[in-house]
Amino acid sequence: MQYIVEALTDKYLLYQDQVINFTNNIPEFQIFFNDHVTNDFNILFRSLPFDRSYYAYGVPGSFYGRLFPSRSIHFAHSSSGINWLSKIPKELVDEKSPAWNKGLIHYVGASNVEVVNAYFAQFEKDMEIFFNVRAEEIVQGGMIVLITAFSGYIRLLKFFGSSLMDLANEGKLDESLVDSFNLPLYYPSPQDMTKVVRKNGLFSIERMELINIKSNLVDEADAKTLMMSLRSSIEGIIINHFGSKIGEEACARTILKSEEISEWMKVNYEKPSILFVALKRK
Amino acid sequence: MQYIVEALTDKYLLYQDQVINFTNNIPEFQIFFNDHVTNDFNILFRSLPFDRSYYAYGVPGSFYGRLFPSRSIHFAHSSSGINWLSKIPKELVDEKSPAWNKGLIHYVGASNVEVVNAYFAQFEKDMEIFFNVRAEEIVQGGMIVLITAFSGYIRLLKFFGSSLMDLANEGKLDESLVDSFNLPLYYPSPQDMTKVVRKNGLFSIERMELINIKSNLVDEADAKTLMMSLRSSIEGIIINHFGSKIGEEACARTILKSEEISEWMKVNYEKPSILFVALKRK
Repeated sequence: MQYIVEALTDKYLLYQDQVINFTNNIPEFQIFFNDHVTNDFNILFRSLPFDRSYYAYGVPGSFYGRLFPSRSIHFAHSSSGINWLSKIPKELVDEKSPAWNKGLIHYVGASNVEVVNAYFAQFEKDMEIFFNVRAEEIVQGGMIVLITAFSGYIRLLKFFGSSLMDLANEGKLDESLVDSFNLPLYYPSPQDMTKVVRKNGLFSIERMELINIKSNLVDEADAKTLMMSLRSSIEGIIINHFGSKIGEEACARTILKSEEISEWMKVNYEKPSILFVALKRK
Repeated sequence: MQYIVEALTDKYLLYQDQVINFTNNIPEFQIFFNDHVTNDFNILFRSLPFDRSYYAYGVPGSFYGRLFPSRSIHFAHSSSGINWLSKIPKELVDEKSPAWNKGLIHYVGASNVEVVNAYFAQFEKDMEIFFNVRAEEIVQGGMIVLITAFSGYIRLLKFFGSSLMDLANEGKLDESLVDSFNLPLYYPSPQDMTKVVRKNGLFSIERMELINIKSNLVDEADAKTLMMSLRSSIEGIIINHFGSKIGEEACARTILKSEEISEWMKVNYEKPSILFVALKRK
């Protein structure tokens, strides 16, 4: 946040230099941190720098609903947020549907194109809502910057899913529990993102690129560290469905697949792993 | 908060009726809930009504500092907040000072007028800071409504302090621990409040009154229930200084004084116990 505030202040001062008789006050910044009601806002508040150059607020609630008054926001940023779907499409767990995702917990690794289509359709619906509510909140010319994972540990979902199926095959877990579960995560490609922005029509794409953030995690291709990173984001939802014992065991099993995972990481870690999108409110 | 929003909406609609060609939109409300960083904002967020007619935010930080941009607030309310002093005046714990508050933990029950004066001087300094920062944040004509306890369970502080001294007299607690502790609580009278508002000069007093909120707690004059109420507000600070064992024992001892407390409550519970103040930014 500090970087964003500094960048905006610099831009503002530069603008002042170009305009005669412009008031010489640096604007005040209000930064609103949004998350679900159930997330721990106190950890966030305690981690804010004491000498921050902005006013900080916590905003509880889903970003698929309105969070701010009309035309009150100048800059919005979401990092690793929009890849969380608002819900799982019903057809993925309906055995009569062609999109039934039997034996898998995600579209990654699925050979059935209907599964990917169902995921994308939900992403499309969610983004339409997301853009509509943000468009009401953001001033004309205001910006949204979105960052989402594009590859990287996403692949691990496949290995984690296969660990669950191993447990089912060994009779430790009822397979129907795997069939009835899908992770509500969609990782858009640049083409997906272009499609949903254009369909919505309220924002223009100012910049979109795939970037490669080389992290120690990925360089080391260490299944254990990678699993911990994945676990921190999906643990709650896994335990909720499978219970903590199965969740633990599936994590442990996935780490045992580290050789296979490392092979995959070595081939892929130089590839871009993050999608960066900058949008402007029309 | 819902009542305040409804009252403001009604007032706004009434104003619309009186003005020709006034736009017919009900304004959007942003409500900012402020508390210390260490308080649990998640409990607050979970308790907000789902169908609320306002946008809700959490604001971490002391209200003796700036929390909002200049001239951005229309209505501020603090209930049982301003009675918390920012710190304890040093002279209360300095044995060389005429304001040394030996054997007591608060000015309630103190016969030494210097003790009360030291407390009031700190309250005066704090309120000067409070009014100055709020004056920068509140629009011209904007309001502050303050509510503070005036009597009621305050008297219990005396009984609680004497329980601590009982423990010291029995050798279970070093008396210097009592001498070095004072509760950072000041309960202003209408005269005190008038003085600090006038001294500051940035707000006008629109209304000030002592009101009597008859609660079940006070009607019953039940020392145990009353002690639980007091405990919820001072427990942290007591444990911090005396440790939890002594804190527990002093609470238990205070409850044993219930007859004495009940006597006092019966005489006093019909008296006004709350100070209500409405101020307007000049």
